[in-house]
Amino acid sequence: MPQIETVYSPSLVEHYSLHEKTVVVVDILRATTSMCVAFAHGVDHIIPLVSIYETFLYKSKHYITAGERNGQKVEGFEKGNSPFDFMGDDIKDKALAITTTNGTQAIHASLTADHIYIGAFVNLQAVANRLVEEQKDTIILCAGWKNKFNLEDTLFAGALADILYQSGFEVNDDASIAARVLYASAKDNLGMFIKQSAHAQRFERMGIERDIDFCMQQNIYDFVPYYKEGKLII
Amino acid sequence: MPQIETVYSPSLVEHYSLHEKTVVVVDILRATTSMCVAFAHGVDHIIPLVSIYETFLYKSKHYITAGERNGQKVEGFEKGNSPFDFMGDDIKDKALAITTTNGTQAIHASLTADHIYIGAFVNLQAVANRLVEEQKDTIILCAGWKNKFNLEDTLFAGALADILYQSGFEVNDDASIAARVLYASAKDNLGMFIKQSAHAQRFERMGIERDIDFCMQQNIYDFVPYYKEGKLII
Repeated sequence: MPQIETVYSPSLVEHYSLHEKTVVVVDILRATTSMCVAFAHGVDHIIPLVSIYETFLYKSKHYITAGERNGQKVEGFEKGNSPFDFMGDDIKDKALAITTTNGTQAIHASLTADHIYIGAFVNLQAVANRLVEEQKDTIILCAGWKNKFNLEDTLFAGALADILYQSGFEVNDDASIAARVLYASAKDNLGMFIKQSAHAQRFERMGIERDIDFCMQQNIYDFVPYYKEGKLII
Repeated sequence: MPQIETVYSPSLVEHYSLHEKTVVVVDILRATTSMCVAFAHGVDHIIPLVSIYETFLYKSKHYITAGERNGQKVEGFEKGNSPFDFMGDDIKDKALAITTTNGTQAIHASLTADHIYIGAFVNLQAVANRLVEEQKDTIILCAGWKNKFNLEDTLFAGALADILYQSGFEVNDDASIAARVLYASAKDNLGMFIKQSAHAQRFERMGIERDIDFCMQQNIYDFVPYYKEGKLII
């Protein structure tokens, strides 16, 4: 049976082998949710980048640039990291270059894996279906907050591990067991639980509570963005 | 109000400031439990060391050497890492040099803190009392297993954070919130819960289940070992 492991921070990835594995990268608030939104609104592809400077260089290649540091839009970029930034007609068939504090860093920490999938509550079941179809050992990589553990990504990991456990995957590692316990405690009131989290409270202070509400919605999209040769596509 | 934060792996410590803080190092199975046992049986002091080689050098200084790698006693050392190794009269008034896979590494990751305390279920309440007395910002550092998250250290973190929360500490960080939820789910059957953990299962295969049972006992000691100038003392 294929195995699931959960990793709580990109800076812990070095302690795991990604060889021949699938990695699901999750940054619920907000990078991986916003990436799904962009694909749902017709973006052609997304380049996930580590630095602001690299992302800036894509302006000359006619990419739409998007980015966030510490939860704030990067000055000079067209878009921030809110899902609501990617709902307009202006991104249809366009290419997007994006850098974020946590999510794009987590993608780059996963490059030695066989497959990298983009997961969020908005496409949870689609991700689960894909993993069940492919039957490969999988690491759920929580982007966290500046390399620290966070609640919202862990709750997603618990939700995904639950579905996979029901589908016969082995879910034996301590981090996945803890994520499932956490999800079981929170699932009947996920929004309230997540609003306790440090990251959500930071967001509330910034007045972007509606982003949180959006990011908590489950299964509104049925596709799975994946990484191929430097690009995210569906 | 002083704050509590929980860190799930020594390799995440670099993302936290330890300046003017107290660190409680926890390695339930078995290093910090065994250290408490050694002090209860009259050891004078303990030198916690990172490498087998450094520890070996203490033989010529008439230290008792103890150590474990991958759960197994280091060849040529007098003691392993089981609490039952430190219950004899042979350690009374002696000095001990010890190296372990996770626990002694976690102590060395904490050296920039103001105070380093040794915590385990066996001295849980004593640690809590000391922290309440001193009212300092505190990091609970889980030694984990080879830099990965583990259940048993996280449950201790949840138990300690619970007591401190009741005593007026701020417990706002996501990792402490998750640890408290986990502890609330497990506390009525802590032993059974911990025996699910990867580390405990490894131990069971090694036939040292009685070590696990010993390490789950709460508050059998009322002292707090602490680090001072290279040594642990009480």
